[in-house]
Amino acid sequence: MEPGIPHTSIWEEHGRVLYIDQRRLPFIVHIASLDTFQDAVRAIREMEVRGAPLIGVTAAYGMWRKCQELGDVHEFSAIIDAGEILKACRPTAVNLAWAVDRIIRTLREVPAPRRAAAAHDAAAAIRSEDIEQCRAIGQHGMQLIRRLHERNPERPVRILTHCNAGFLACVRYGTATAPMYAAHAAGIPIEVWVDETRPRNQGASLTTWELQQAGIPYYLLTDNAGGLLMQQGLVDLVITGSDRTARNGDVCNKIGTYLKALAAFDNKIPFYAALPSSTFDLSLSSGVGSIEIEYRDEQEVACVSGLDELSGELRTVRIAPPDTMCHNPGFDITPARLVSGLITERGICTASEPGILSLFPEYAG
Amino acid sequence: MEPGIPHTSIWEEHGRVLYIDQRRLPFIVHIASLDTFQDAVRAIREMEVRGAPLIGVTAAYGMWRKCQELGDVHEFSAIIDAGEILKACRPTAVNLAWAVDRIIRTLREVPAPRRAAAAHDAAAAIRSEDIEQCRAIGQHGMQLIRRLHERNPERPVRILTHCNAGFLACVRYGTATAPMYAAHAAGIPIEVWVDETRPRNQGASLTTWELQQAGIPYYLLTDNAGGLLMQQGLVDLVITGSDRTARNGDVCNKIGTYLKALAAFDNKIPFYAALPSSTFDLSLSSGVGSIEIEYRDEQEVACVSGLDELSGELRTVRIAPPDTMCHNPGFDITPARLVSGLITERGICTASEPGILSLFPEYAG
Repeated sequence: MEPGIPHTSIWEEHGRVLYIDQRRLPFIVHIASLDTFQDAVRAIREMEVRGAPLIGVTAAYGMWRKCQELGDVHEFSAIIDAGEILKACRPTAVNLAWAVDRIIRTLREVPAPRRAAAAHDAAAAIRSEDIEQCRAIGQHGMQLIRRLHERNPERPVRILTHCNAGFLACVRYGTATAPMYAAHAAGIPIEVWVDETRPRNQGASLTTWELQQAGIPYYLLTDNAGGLLMQQGLVDLVITGSDRTARNGDVCNKIGTYLKALAAFDNKIPFYAALPSSTFDLSLSSGVGSIEIEYRDEQEVACVSGLDELSGELRTVRIAPPDTMCHNPGFDITPARLVSGLITERGICTASEPGILSLFPEYAG
Repeated sequence: MEPGIPHTSIWEEHGRVLYIDQRRLPFIVHIASLDTFQDAVRAIREMEVRGAPLIGVTAAYGMWRKCQELGDVHEFSAIIDAGEILKACRPTAVNLAWAVDRIIRTLREVPAPRRAAAAHDAAAAIRSEDIEQCRAIGQHGMQLIRRLHERNPERPVRILTHCNAGFLACVRYGTATAPMYAAHAAGIPIEVWVDETRPRNQGASLTTWELQQAGIPYYLLTDNAGGLLMQQGLVDLVITGSDRTARNGDVCNKIGTYLKALAAFDNKIPFYAALPSSTFDLSLSSGVGSIEIEYRDEQEVACVSGLDELSGELRTVRIAPPDTMCHNPGFDITPARLVSGLITERGICTASEPGILSLFPEYAG
């Protein structure tokens, strides 16, 4: 990392909560401050922050700000209401509701004047736990990369990833990127194929930036290219994140993940999802057809934002004719049958109920 | 079609060859003139024209211009050399070499002073044949749509297409779009899901424009979305074009086609490629691993062009960090096992050597 460039997406400094406003990356590293509950709502809804774990941490800090704003005398229903507002900002990612509910559970036992302090401590704990979980995901996932490297020691291990499941989606290390960072730190040579990930181009703008900061070689691809690369034998491993994983191992993740999983399966390439256990939604027996898919603004499809290199300004250009109707689902479901395994903070398991319960027996029953 | 908007991509008018410079669509309908051999070279290389059949017609008219420029006294080797220059402009599409070789064969028997007239007539014939072939493809493909409509008469038939295999890729009607135009003309209700088709967005900028002109309802999608739509049962049929089809039915087409074919197969949705017989390359026993893939400029991936709605100007914005390396293959290969059938000017056949030979017995041996 260059000096001055944060390698965490959200942090506390002198009593303030700071975060990277990711909408200006990779061209501008803008540090924003989460001073109010509305700041948290806006940051999540407008996707200043994104990525399931980071959304959870941001929401937790938002609940802290709400407690501060409510002051020493307030009804508990105001806490509940604030949680509902935050949960409604993004419907698909399970971590958002998980973090909000955890704060609410914590606060229920605490008298009103002490709720702000308790909310702060709980939010800081969620942040620390996320860092530790991502570190552990990295160590477990690195073993996959190490084994592939030992099989072909004369060349880098080539890993394809979709969207950004990096530290910018979490707090540090990331989920899908954690094994890459761990492998790189351990001296295992890797090269990363980065899907640009339309419509919001989190791969092109965020994953590329992260890897560049870390000095890991990468190539940017259109979302269309990965299938050919797999046909050509240029991909050794696919690792993506997950926004919600069902009891049977079905993986909900950024739109387009399913297509890469199909291509990996067709070409006998291992496909793994990396996720902290907070991403499991064991209330869902399966993902296909059950997980609510978030539909986003048509403008994300009709337009693309980036840097106008002539003027040096960020601009948005329209790529479709006027009056074009667009359809913009944000996520798809990769059936468990296409998933080689799940990389979690406790190790790697098969994408199945027995696999998940073997690592997380407390979820049984 | 609105009055004044051409519904053909290249045509003759008062002794000139006119064509739509497609790089400015959908925002500006710029008509350019192919006055010299170099105009043809530039139009093909810079993708002012694109689409395998249209490239062939453009190259044929380019050979005519070369004959005019060579005048009444010239060596035949100059014709050969000109053909090589044209063929080198785009390596993947077979129609380019096919059209050039056809002109060269025609001219071989003709004395130098009469070659320009012969080249003109051959180019005009290639253009007319393309129109007739696309018309026939439309009639055959419409039967697929009609059968799907009869199965569910209460709603439109929902067709997904990738890239632009419309009249802008051919001369009129198009290949993948011809069945859509024929169905629409026959009163069969359809809705089209249009993949934007990064990196050059031919779906977002060209297919949308064509369908809008024709009054056919459509929705624009990112290239990532089609898999989810198929999981959700929102796609009845996939039709794409083809740039080259091997003897065994493997279909080379715009990068990303393979991913949609995998998703269609996984969801038991029919996947058809529509192509004139000039697209067959029966010298190739299979496509996977045999067809040369064209790699294009990294800038196509790192940047996106469109309309700046604030200034009304066409602009290019960069979506990736400086110094990002990109990998930009233009085509992929869909294995025949994923292809439900080939829609040709003589009818529909299975994607297999026996299927192709049943319609084109003259290719046997």
